[in-house]
Amino acid sequence: MKNAVGRELPSYIEGYGPVRPFAGAHAPAGRPERAARPAGGRRSGGKLLPSIEEAIKRTGLRDGMTVSFHHHLRNGDRVTVLVMEAIARLGLKDIRVAASGLFACHDPLAELIDRGVITGMTFSTISRGKVAQAISGGRLKQPAVLMTHGGRARSIAAGELHIDVAFIAAPSCDEEGNASGRTGPSACGMLSYACADARYADQVVVVTDTLEPYPLHPAQICQTDVDWVVRVDAIGDPGGIAYGPTRVSADPESLSVARSAAELLRAAGYIKPGMSLQTGAGGISLAVAGEVGRIMEAEGVTGSFALGGITAPLVDMLHRGLFRALLDTQCFDAAAIRSVAEDGDHVVISAEQYADPAAKSCAVERLDIMILGATELDLDFNLNVITGSDGAIMSAAGGNSDCAAGAKVAVVVSKLVKGGYCLVRDRVTTVTTPGETVDVLVTDLGIAVNPRRGDLLEKLRRADIETVDIARLKELGEERADRKARPRLGDRIVGVVEYRDGSVIDVVRQKLDGTEA
Amino acid sequence: MKNAVGRELPSYIEGYGPVRPFAGAHAPAGRPERAARPAGGRRSGGKLLPSIEEAIKRTGLRDGMTVSFHHHLRNGDRVTVLVMEAIARLGLKDIRVAASGLFACHDPLAELIDRGVITGMTFSTISRGKVAQAISGGRLKQPAVLMTHGGRARSIAAGELHIDVAFIAAPSCDEEGNASGRTGPSACGMLSYACADARYADQVVVVTDTLEPYPLHPAQICQTDVDWVVRVDAIGDPGGIAYGPTRVSADPESLSVARSAAELLRAAGYIKPGMSLQTGAGGISLAVAGEVGRIMEAEGVTGSFALGGITAPLVDMLHRGLFRALLDTQCFDAAAIRSVAEDGDHVVISAEQYADPAAKSCAVERLDIMILGATELDLDFNLNVITGSDGAIMSAAGGNSDCAAGAKVAVVVSKLVKGGYCLVRDRVTTVTTPGETVDVLVTDLGIAVNPRRGDLLEKLRRADIETVDIARLKELGEERADRKARPRLGDRIVGVVEYRDGSVIDVVRQKLDGTEA
Repeated sequence: MKNAVGRELPSYIEGYGPVRPFAGAHAPAGRPERAARPAGGRRSGGKLLPSIEEAIKRTGLRDGMTVSFHHHLRNGDRVTVLVMEAIARLGLKDIRVAASGLFACHDPLAELIDRGVITGMTFSTISRGKVAQAISGGRLKQPAVLMTHGGRARSIAAGELHIDVAFIAAPSCDEEGNASGRTGPSACGMLSYACADARYADQVVVVTDTLEPYPLHPAQICQTDVDWVVRVDAIGDPGGIAYGPTRVSADPESLSVARSAAELLRAAGYIKPGMSLQTGAGGISLAVAGEVGRIMEAEGVTGSFALGGITAPLVDMLHRGLFRALLDTQCFDAAAIRSVAEDGDHVVISAEQYADPAAKSCAVERLDIMILGATELDLDFNLNVITGSDGAIMSAAGGNSDCAAGAKVAVVVSKLVKGGYCLVRDRVTTVTTPGETVDVLVTDLGIAVNPRRGDLLEKLRRADIETVDIARLKELGEERADRKARPRLGDRIVGVVEYRDGSVIDVVRQKLDGTEA
Repeated sequence: MKNAVGRELPSYIEGYGPVRPFAGAHAPAGRPERAARPAGGRRSGGKLLPSIEEAIKRTGLRDGMTVSFHHHLRNGDRVTVLVMEAIARLGLKDIRVAASGLFACHDPLAELIDRGVITGMTFSTISRGKVAQAISGGRLKQPAVLMTHGGRARSIAAGELHIDVAFIAAPSCDEEGNASGRTGPSACGMLSYACADARYADQVVVVTDTLEPYPLHPAQICQTDVDWVVRVDAIGDPGGIAYGPTRVSADPESLSVARSAAELLRAAGYIKPGMSLQTGAGGISLAVAGEVGRIMEAEGVTGSFALGGITAPLVDMLHRGLFRALLDTQCFDAAAIRSVAEDGDHVVISAEQYADPAAKSCAVERLDIMILGATELDLDFNLNVITGSDGAIMSAAGGNSDCAAGAKVAVVVSKLVKGGYCLVRDRVTTVTTPGETVDVLVTDLGIAVNPRRGDLLEKLRRADIETVDIARLKELGEERADRKARPRLGDRIVGVVEYRDGSVIDVVRQKLDGTEA
């Protein structure tokens, strides 16, 4: 069967189950219930346990179960590997790892994949590394399930992604499990992606390196949801926590893209009092934030909120009074982490409040402007942010498709030729974000507007901003690209890409060695 | 059948259902699941509605359904009556009102009871007034269900108390439903008792008089749980919000009770670093707080937290550094409301975190000292805080039995003769709090220790603190009491008293006119 972005999908995928095909960004929701979960009740002897091994034993974790982790410690996370290696030592196997995100620091998990300790994985963000290689190469037994940040919260709440035991790394925690990301030597700002895990997992283990006296406050994870607390020497490596592609681009082509995007937003009337904005953490996106900030300051505009993934440039905009609040699910750098602890208007929200499409409303639905990155974009404006041009998994949707669906205008900013490849394709390797939710592509060689947005085209015409057809951008890019090879892919499905509503928008097939001409 | 406090109960109560008899304060929990609830999903047109009538219509409220309210606006609440009168105007009937608390300001509901608009009620606190009279007099069709604060949160989460539509009065709110009690002309501090309603009700309507720009922060009710928002002129009467029996007792007998209680706590070793305390809002209880504070200051003791129901004396103790934090579910006065907005260590917690016995842990389980009020106490130390000596409902358990069950020491403070009656009875009119959780009675005419607490008796003996047998206190009181009449009660069950675990600890029978000799 074909889904609404034209992808051919099987009706059933071994190791995943029946496929509900993507039917459009605003198709009716799949499952109308929130899941039940076990209650707790007073337990004698307290929650504090001496080791991760002991916690694994006390939870009764068994072969075939699902454990979860969050990625606020980013490339400095030590807890996921500590727990999974303990699980391996205890002889357990066939475990599904439901991580919100995976980084190079999680490379040791690749060996556990090869040993059959880990046979399933879900995540909503991933970086290049040995785990991504193992998945792309077909070494994980079941297909990995790639979600969006909002989709992951939805899936957990709906009981589709059922978590048997959530392991939550916490920079500070009290012995009842009230936990926070604000303070402690491994401070990461917040625990937003772990909120759904805490609320819906059968059992919850908080792993901390900093036990604070009861009652720890303010807490983002509440004692009411926590079964066990374990203290370890270090949950994270501070050098890796503030890790990400978070430097503002400085090359002239990138800066010209950023200026064009900001000017387009101004001309189209999106820079106005009460406006809201999310930029990703990519270099050009951050440069757009800077340009938008300059226009806001020049025109005396105060915005409502910046949403994110928060970085130093956005903290700076808060301090300059350009936004009344930051709504934050993840700190990308040290400045953002510091700001959470110091700025009352830097508001920590859960993944559910950020982007869950089954919540009674969420922040992305209030978003005016979303600045998107992409690896590939096709003639229908479908985006790929998951697979590289070699066919390997190198990232995941994160909040990309959540924000594109919610925002009033979703703008892709990129150089037209990236890594030698033309950004615009006839057909993207993997559809991450449907073209119906992507409005504009701004490149160093021209701007293309999605034909669905006639209103926007008209505004740009009136403002004398030149646009070109997306097909013309493809030609321009292909003329300049020196790499055109396409990935060599096998038949085996190694990744199932879920749209935020849990429908399947695409699959990722096994990467074979080499490329096709 | 008889339950564990010796009360004869039917196995089935018409209008209530099958009775699960109370089996002990720490009997295994009844129901191991948290309830499922409907998800939401994006709704076009926004949440803001022009009137309460419109909100009632949009929720699809029908005859026989359950609506809920919270009582943070205390005797100044206007929302419950506004909503129920609108429900009556729309011709609906047979509605169950699940309020967390009811006050004299809710008197107009009595007429709706008589008209059959309201046929069922649940609450965990109530004041004397027309509603209490209507229930006691047998005018409500179904028996009222009296819960504890923690039991109400548990019952909602378990799906036993299923709420069709929660109406949440909010002193400030944004148009997505992020709501707070901290600010606004009707500020009440917090919305803690409404948290379970917001999380588990099928639909949630926030009623506010102060719309703030999005995103309101910090919010205690999250947009993810809110279906509709309605603005009205005034949700509360500030004069009634800071309402309660919150003046410190000044008469010599009361002060002597307070001093005895504080001295007993010191002698028994409960006043020590890291200690925690809850006093109710009664006059003698507040005087105990003052006396304990003096001892703490004199001995250089810093406590962990005071729990509550918070009043000015406890805010003062926070400011003097006697506690590291206040954990608060309800502000009893203006000083407490101000403190929530100003003091970072005045921490707002939900009813679930306060006292839900099915949570994975809750604050009352960390409590060292609980100071209790009571109307009657029997020879087994069972407490009655629900019915007056005339048999009429005049209060409800609130946090009384939750805290008694959790605290290391639960101390009843009272004058031995109250309103002409002796506090100590052979048999209390209604059992609210089981004697197995009540440790000491301190009166102006002597101290009696529950024989179960041999350890405590021993400590007091060593400290030369004199105690008497509870039966002796009964004799002393009866000698001085000038009123001995017992209530005249009918057979009809007008109230079912649920212990915090949902089991039935007692029933309240219809009050007939007059009293028995």
